[in-house]
Amino acid sequence: MDIEKALLERRTIRLYQQKPVPVEDLRFMIDAARQTSSASNLQRLRFVVATSPSVVNEMLAKTAWAALVKPRRTPVAGETGPAAFIAVTVPAGFNHIVAADAGAAIQSMQLAAWSRGLGCCWIASIDKAAMKQILRVPEEREVLFVVSVGYPAEAPRSEEVHSVDQLAYYLDESNRLHVPKLALEEISVWM
Amino acid sequence: MDIEKALLERRTIRLYQQKPVPVEDLRFMIDAARQTSSASNLQRLRFVVATSPSVVNEMLAKTAWAALVKPRRTPVAGETGPAAFIAVTVPAGFNHIVAADAGAAIQSMQLAAWSRGLGCCWIASIDKAAMKQILRVPEEREVLFVVSVGYPAEAPRSEEVHSVDQLAYYLDESNRLHVPKLALEEISVWM
Repeated sequence: MDIEKALLERRTIRLYQQKPVPVEDLRFMIDAARQTSSASNLQRLRFVVATSPSVVNEMLAKTAWAALVKPRRTPVAGETGPAAFIAVTVPAGFNHIVAADAGAAIQSMQLAAWSRGLGCCWIASIDKAAMKQILRVPEEREVLFVVSVGYPAEAPRSEEVHSVDQLAYYLDESNRLHVPKLALEEISVWM
Repeated sequence: MDIEKALLERRTIRLYQQKPVPVEDLRFMIDAARQTSSASNLQRLRFVVATSPSVVNEMLAKTAWAALVKPRRTPVAGETGPAAFIAVTVPAGFNHIVAADAGAAIQSMQLAAWSRGLGCCWIASIDKAAMKQILRVPEEREVLFVVSVGYPAEAPRSEEVHSVDQLAYYLDESNRLHVPKLALEEISVWM
């Protein structure tokens, strides 16, 4: 897939087809994360890839989704749930530089997934203590974010807006998600 | 450019050809940032794009580069300096979620640049107070990171390693930068 297409057309996916994700595609996602910029090249991120349905469903129960359109974009295990989760762990007591590294690696993973026909949702609203236990994360690390992965069963649409008062995403009468994005002119200054 | 190529082959570039960057390519970078995931779709990042040589050189003087190979990967204005900088600003008192958003947007911008034949360096070691003044950033915001942009005058190489004791990047006898990256097996657990 052309990178321009992926960068401009990728969208967050919250409803999934009930179809497994090839291990090779998940490995490509981790490989993309691995080659992402890392502050001082310290590579402090680690990844737990969960594909076993019992683990995936346990994780799903510890996540919260799309508050503004609840519960219509909260996937249901066995119906619209993801096929996999990738948890991103960081050293306990991490700082904002490590958080930025995590964001960069997650964006690479989302683009890698999209290029293989997969969709992701990057989730910060998680029960961290429960995730740590489910994934047997070592004492000295914590789960910062999780990313769900699966074949899309929705097609959200981005639309350009010009004010921060218009950022609320919404579902239209055909149950399609619309995601307002500020126009280039609103977010950049040139000098 | 194929996205697989960009995700796996992109490298940080710190030495640049003395050649301007097309405005269209910088706009594509901002567009890629604009379509990147943003927590709760709040879009709290703003971007200052500097291409005027006087501003770029003022900014360059307020950055620190590649500590382990100093000063051989510190670009020099008019010789190896970048053609542009993009500063990423965030609300003052930002949290780690906003920092993660910034990391994700920066990774999108770096991939967009790479697809146009450009290289970037994501820089956290900056004099934030000076940057704020140079870029006339509003009182209620701060400069979190800057990204340099230009046509590459170096070709760093990634190499696979298996221990965190081997992460120090280095220059070889031909002045090529080598960047050790942990193998997939070292950074991921599958369950």
